[in-house]
Amino acid sequence: MAEVTVGIVVIGNEILSGKVMDTNSAFLARGLREVGGELRRIAVVPDEIDEIVEVIRDFSKRFEVVLTSGGIGPTHDDITIAAVARALGRRVIRHPTIEEGLRRFFKDNVNSAHLKMAEVPEGAELIQGGEVKFPVVKVENVYLLPGIPQILEDKFHVIKQRFTGARYHLKTIYSCKGESVIAEHLDATLARFPDLLLGSYPRLGDADYRVKVTLESRDQAYVEQAFAHLVGILPEGTVVRTEEG
Amino acid sequence: MAEVTVGIVVIGNEILSGKVMDTNSAFLARGLREVGGELRRIAVVPDEIDEIVEVIRDFSKRFEVVLTSGGIGPTHDDITIAAVARALGRRVIRHPTIEEGLRRFFKDNVNSAHLKMAEVPEGAELIQGGEVKFPVVKVENVYLLPGIPQILEDKFHVIKQRFTGARYHLKTIYSCKGESVIAEHLDATLARFPDLLLGSYPRLGDADYRVKVTLESRDQAYVEQAFAHLVGILPEGTVVRTEEG
Repeated sequence: MAEVTVGIVVIGNEILSGKVMDTNSAFLARGLREVGGELRRIAVVPDEIDEIVEVIRDFSKRFEVVLTSGGIGPTHDDITIAAVARALGRRVIRHPTIEEGLRRFFKDNVNSAHLKMAEVPEGAELIQGGEVKFPVVKVENVYLLPGIPQILEDKFHVIKQRFTGARYHLKTIYSCKGESVIAEHLDATLARFPDLLLGSYPRLGDADYRVKVTLESRDQAYVEQAFAHLVGILPEGTVVRTEEG
Repeated sequence: MAEVTVGIVVIGNEILSGKVMDTNSAFLARGLREVGGELRRIAVVPDEIDEIVEVIRDFSKRFEVVLTSGGIGPTHDDITIAAVARALGRRVIRHPTIEEGLRRFFKDNVNSAHLKMAEVPEGAELIQGGEVKFPVVKVENVYLLPGIPQILEDKFHVIKQRFTGARYHLKTIYSCKGESVIAEHLDATLARFPDLLLGSYPRLGDADYRVKVTLESRDQAYVEQAFAHLVGILPEGTVVRTEEG
């Protein structure tokens, strides 16, 4: 099963200006990991159309799937629809299905801000589902998700099965020796298991370990063999504990 | 005082794979805001040299300052030094000052992993300071910060005054009306104050407001005037409360 490569584009001045912490990309990263999708890059860009267009155009060519977060509401700073349309060389149109739904819901109170919510890049597909009635707009390989975390999460669950791939198998070793002591053993393991994803994460402070070492592969037998190899060559007393999964 | 434009490059498979949440870019965003730096873009890239080289090369031309986070330790997955060197067309050399410090500290126990920590792009500047002895490596307009949050924060405090600019003045309005009601008043305010940074952030759940509206400018009088204008035109009963700063 080939993995789906994914790029995430987070749109929002509020994140770049440090007023709001982006939790959406971390949520999506975890969610993609669970289904086996391959997140390759995250970009956070300001609410400026040229900036968004440039990154969407680049990511939509580079990755099989692009997920955007933010900028799809009814106000002036919601320019993601226009940016995605321009990036993909399409016009912005008012989608009749969404417009009809909005008119049915708001009746005589419908205004231009409501109707802005019906705008989509021409040729977009609507994906229904989840607790929130409003559909996910998809155009070519770009899925437009909202910036509000609860709704983004709801919508991601609707579409995530589209990104399914072979999952990673993870084994973790906690080392009480520092990175400079274990580095040669990590190198030796990689020399023998070159396709292993091997991470080394030192930790400061009062943990019972100094380095967390992660071994990953989509091939379970491979990661088990690499794990056994590394545990076997680490100096005695190095491993505090190990974890699976 | 002209603002310093900044791009952040976060290097780490552990973030893209959803195992670790990146808190460094949010810390740096807040820190840059405090000193008046202008964060323009964040990229999160995998531990792959071609990927890192491409983004560093792009950001170092595009922005006045680039801050990197991660990948500067002694293990196999620490490739940021090599990537920055290649992006800027430089060799990697062992810096005599760092090497001497490491040899003095580790004495006869010094190994190749320790000495990897002395590698820098040729021509790099060392910036000393902070609680951690190890210097910040700077080359051209790229500052290499570590991935460990405590050390990154310590080092950012050492260098942050280099990014000082005029600060933003912020006023916030909490609205009990939704975005589609207030959108036209936001548009009218922007038409009158085109240089205003105006953000509109809907919130779900049990808050006492539905939309948080932020008004910002580096010109205090300008933001005060825009704030007074918007509060004046919003329908009666819309404003739950306002905040400054």
